[in-house]
Amino acid sequence: MTGRLDPLFSRTLPEGDTHQRDVCDHCGFVAYENPKIVVGSVVTHRGKVLLCRRAIEPRHGYWTVPAGYLELGETPEEGARREAREEANADLELHGLLAVYTVRRLSQVQLIYRATLADGVFSPGIESLETQLFDWDAIPWDDLAFPTVHWMLGHQRAFEAGKGVGPFGNPVGAD
Amino acid sequence: MTGRLDPLFSRTLPEGDTHQRDVCDHCGFVAYENPKIVVGSVVTHRGKVLLCRRAIEPRHGYWTVPAGYLELGETPEEGARREAREEANADLELHGLLAVYTVRRLSQVQLIYRATLADGVFSPGIESLETQLFDWDAIPWDDLAFPTVHWMLGHQRAFEAGKGVGPFGNPVGAD
Repeated sequence: MTGRLDPLFSRTLPEGDTHQRDVCDHCGFVAYENPKIVVGSVVTHRGKVLLCRRAIEPRHGYWTVPAGYLELGETPEEGARREAREEANADLELHGLLAVYTVRRLSQVQLIYRATLADGVFSPGIESLETQLFDWDAIPWDDLAFPTVHWMLGHQRAFEAGKGVGPFGNPVGAD
Repeated sequence: MTGRLDPLFSRTLPEGDTHQRDVCDHCGFVAYENPKIVVGSVVTHRGKVLLCRRAIEPRHGYWTVPAGYLELGETPEEGARREAREEANADLELHGLLAVYTVRRLSQVQLIYRATLADGVFSPGIESLETQLFDWDAIPWDDLAFPTVHWMLGHQRAFEAGKGVGPFGNPVGAD
């Protein structure tokens, strides 16, 4: 226990601001809260797509793509490559932005890249139970972890079919 | 002054994590810090581009495009339109993502849209000293507020010249 004051936040509209913020009554410090950036990639290899079965909550046991929160000082591309190393021990080549999604409820913006395996090598990282290349017809659609995984796999298919170059956005009416 | 404990943060690597975090010695709370999202737009109208002269720091008095931090619960497109209303009293039509930049030093990811004025109307908002439509040859290049404003105006020119559809990224070597 120190002699310092605790911060004492009140919800208020700072002068000239457009949104209410938590402002400290003692010192006027404004505690801004900001949306978070998720970076990830749809990784393909010889016509198949790489999925990871989650070893962590939320959605333990369900399938997803390599993705996670962007870290301070990273570019989105660096973050997408780091997540693939962490979750699938995979080195990626990135080929452009497939999609920008907003998950409004979570204040998340997702930047999803098209990628291929640099050398064909992958295996489960510490956050994955298993990693597997799936033919499109064999994708476990009912066991995907998140709605955005459905969206990005559909948009990857659209891209491959020449139905748009991206970046795609949220499906109409979905956020 | 209350009877609560102050948070007592130590810089440490939480189990299973890949980055050091500020973790509270009392309760184990992990204070994640995340990159911030800036949203903005290059707004054109009849071949001219809309710039705003900043009435706020940093870079008071210098010219920029309508842009600012994305708020909780907003889509990037909504944020870009809000910033144009706040800074230039302008309603926008958005036409796609022009660029995704990373300002590594500030842990900022910028999502910049191509836009036009919905009705040709604009005027200085509270954060702007003046707002003006510039011919390309008349842009005050030496008085632009930030390097990214140079980048996005260059990329808008490249787009208009058919030299790429975007989203463009940082110029090579610049972050």
